[in-house]
Amino acid sequence: MKFLSLASMLLMACFSLSPAQAQFAKPEDAIKYRQSSLSVMGTHFSRLAGMAQGKIPYDAKVAADNAAVVEFMAKLPWTAFGEGTDQGGNTKAKPEVWSDNAKFKDAADKMQAEVVKLGAAAKTGKLDDLKAAVSATGGSCKNCHDNFRNK
Amino acid sequence: MKFLSLASMLLMACFSLSPAQAQFAKPEDAIKYRQSSLSVMGTHFSRLAGMAQGKIPYDAKVAADNAAVVEFMAKLPWTAFGEGTDQGGNTKAKPEVWSDNAKFKDAADKMQAEVVKLGAAAKTGKLDDLKAAVSATGGSCKNCHDNFRNK
Repeated sequence: MKFLSLASMLLMACFSLSPAQAQFAKPEDAIKYRQSSLSVMGTHFSRLAGMAQGKIPYDAKVAADNAAVVEFMAKLPWTAFGEGTDQGGNTKAKPEVWSDNAKFKDAADKMQAEVVKLGAAAKTGKLDDLKAAVSATGGSCKNCHDNFRNK
Repeated sequence: MKFLSLASMLLMACFSLSPAQAQFAKPEDAIKYRQSSLSVMGTHFSRLAGMAQGKIPYDAKVAADNAAVVEFMAKLPWTAFGEGTDQGGNTKAKPEVWSDNAKFKDAADKMQAEVVKLGAAAKTGKLDDLKAAVSATGGSCKNCHDNFRNK
């Protein structure tokens, strides 16, 4: 009985740490949510990338505003990659998201860490800082897409 | 010449106030962006509605977290309703968004004002406060959908 109680507690702890199943009624809902939040993040990141590449005029205030949205959005998608959301809807997620979940989480964490640095770089008002941070963040996006997203 | 200069300045001021055209390369991009940001907002609002309706157990911390996301997301969609984005993609936006734009902006402002109150209500830790704010916010969503979105 003691073992079962401990197992129950661990199970409950897991659910409270990863409540994706409880948060989305259907896999399609989770898929739509993660795609939507990543798409919004991508829109704002692409503006920063445009500035870094000289395609959009650099404006420190606009850069900081866009980076703040990227930083906020980067926290959202991950609860929507719960078990059972590997199929349904029009997902491009590879099976490795779930079969190599530790590596996926590591890639997601790395992206979020780069995005925090991006937010700080955008606030310095220096284009060179932004360029370096955009490059590092873009690398973390690519790393995850290469390993965990079908084309 | 004086008149032309003034006209040019006004034109530039309009663009800097409403830079939607500059922010989205294609109407489809703007449509995807506004749908994505509203969808993410809707996901988090539906959790608060679930708590208000007793379908999801009330948890003050979870409510405050979800309300914070709703509050952030509510600021995003509006630049993506620029001129020329009434068609393209799979938009449900009615022509009235543009033909009666002042009324649309008023509805959007009202929703954002309700959402700020929702964030404050979620922080009180009182379910009754949340219920009242969810009801008012839901009314502002419905008002805008009834007038400006096709079913």
